[in-house]
Amino acid sequence: MRVDDLSTPALLVDADAFSANVARMAAQRPGGMLRPHVKAFKSTALAAELVAAGHDTFCGATARELLGMAAAGLGDDLLLANELVDPRRLQALAACGARVSVAVDSAATVAAAAAAGIREVLVDVAVGMPRCGCPPGAAGRLAELARRAGLEVRGVMGYEGHLMTAPAAEKAAAVEAAMARLLEAHDSVGGDIVSGGGTGTYATNQWVTELQAGSYTLMDTHYAAAGLPFRHALSLLCTVISVDPRGRWAVCDAGLKALGMDHGDPTLTGFEVLFCSDEHTTFAAHDGARLPKVGDRLRMLPAHVDPTVAYHESMHVIGPDDDIIDTWAVDLRGW
Amino acid sequence: MRVDDLSTPALLVDADAFSANVARMAAQRPGGMLRPHVKAFKSTALAAELVAAGHDTFCGATARELLGMAAAGLGDDLLLANELVDPRRLQALAACGARVSVAVDSAATVAAAAAAGIREVLVDVAVGMPRCGCPPGAAGRLAELARRAGLEVRGVMGYEGHLMTAPAAEKAAAVEAAMARLLEAHDSVGGDIVSGGGTGTYATNQWVTELQAGSYTLMDTHYAAAGLPFRHALSLLCTVISVDPRGRWAVCDAGLKALGMDHGDPTLTGFEVLFCSDEHTTFAAHDGARLPKVGDRLRMLPAHVDPTVAYHESMHVIGPDDDIIDTWAVDLRGW
Repeated sequence: MRVDDLSTPALLVDADAFSANVARMAAQRPGGMLRPHVKAFKSTALAAELVAAGHDTFCGATARELLGMAAAGLGDDLLLANELVDPRRLQALAACGARVSVAVDSAATVAAAAAAGIREVLVDVAVGMPRCGCPPGAAGRLAELARRAGLEVRGVMGYEGHLMTAPAAEKAAAVEAAMARLLEAHDSVGGDIVSGGGTGTYATNQWVTELQAGSYTLMDTHYAAAGLPFRHALSLLCTVISVDPRGRWAVCDAGLKALGMDHGDPTLTGFEVLFCSDEHTTFAAHDGARLPKVGDRLRMLPAHVDPTVAYHESMHVIGPDDDIIDTWAVDLRGW
Repeated sequence: MRVDDLSTPALLVDADAFSANVARMAAQRPGGMLRPHVKAFKSTALAAELVAAGHDTFCGATARELLGMAAAGLGDDLLLANELVDPRRLQALAACGARVSVAVDSAATVAAAAAAGIREVLVDVAVGMPRCGCPPGAAGRLAELARRAGLEVRGVMGYEGHLMTAPAAEKAAAVEAAMARLLEAHDSVGGDIVSGGGTGTYATNQWVTELQAGSYTLMDTHYAAAGLPFRHALSLLCTVISVDPRGRWAVCDAGLKALGMDHGDPTLTGFEVLFCSDEHTTFAAHDGARLPKVGDRLRMLPAHVDPTVAYHESMHVIGPDDDIIDTWAVDLRGW
């Protein structure tokens, strides 16, 4: 089967670009120095490729991501890099058969984890982004609370999400300052793990013992604009379904229900995207260029990989001649 | 089972608001004067409620929406209100056992429909929105082309999508002008059907024989801001998972993978949404107000119903005492 045989919209993964991305990261962060974040791709089939590249610890943002990884036998060491107080989901994680650690940042999250039978936690520390995480100065007391509740405290985590696409000139110093907060917390918490970072700070963050990154595998235009060396492996195949007879625009069959829109419009190389509707993208030709015709296939680059993948049931892995090498189920969707 | 028993994030449908919305529209557009658009809710269970309210014709934006409706026995008269050139999907529609009409706006779409065994079409006419549709002056020739290809031409459709949330003072005249283009096309095309409109023009558009509306059933803040009388039936239940100890913000467990973001942030009544991340929304209290505590449940109002529902597997229908009356599968997702 070939790309031309696919119905659209459909996600494509360029096998060569994907492999290059995985190899580049594995060279920088081999084995357990990377804890791949499955939230970016939500696919156990893709995760299995990362295992083959030497990574056997993973993190996720939802219970379903971790339960799916455990069920697929990819659960040597799974981290819920998020707070969770739902007893049913915490109990499912505790009973899934894999080694599961969860993040805690409050007495309430510690109590919920302990009550559900979770055995290991990381203390989540606020390092500058207004989201989860306790203040560095409170981390030691929280670790103590967790230990008294019978939990093993493996260390700390902190996500410098506000710095992922910071200008290069400022990034190093800003990441160092954020990680100083995490290391301050680690001094009082103890444990082997200092977990943090992401695709945008993969080369900058020298302070974590393990990097939480997932987007690098597939990439998007938001991360590419930050000058990262990873290649666009993910694209959205679409079909032109209508062309304005006066040549002002054309319309393809992939819209905002096939794309994450929080980082803006997708990119259609060679054309100018005018706007996305539910199931359409309207685009214009650059000056002097010709519009495609009805039935032509185009490939869009998503602005944000995570919410784009979450709309799809599968990703098709394509080789250099547009043959379909594999189809990866997006089997970790939902919560 | 009650709302408190649900894991989050979860979509809730207020049964009373939903029924009121359905009744209000059915009073304005009874029976076949409304062709409910399933793209807004992607659920055969919800569609069955509309059948019970007297509507037995439907439209959709994707082949899967229509094939699912046909399989559920809700296929008295289904319209693909979109252009499609995929032979496999057109053949599936032609063979699904239901009466299926498709929109055409070019020689290529006519040829694709005829080749696949589609029997009935509407000519899609551009009425002012830069998307699909042929010019009004070309509609007659296109109808002739379709009839020569053996297709029955049932009439015309045109979507004044650019006017859905136009200011009230301008809407009536603008919709009339758009529909003048559609009626001009209809004069040369013939057939019984003049299809168009949507939730935003349900009371304004007096020119169509059938209105294509779906969002009115569930509603969102974008449509509500336009002053429509439909109630918020849809909300997103979430759980507070982290609260800043200094009281500057709190974080819940529903983010941009549980919400369509193209119309902006969701609304959290009583609080100020600061930003959404993949699986979180960070929000602040209004001056002097108190933040909730970890474990508290809140309900967010989505900015755009269609792409929000498309992220979820189900919607829970709730009664006046927060009891769960029914759970509707979102079974028409994908393409």
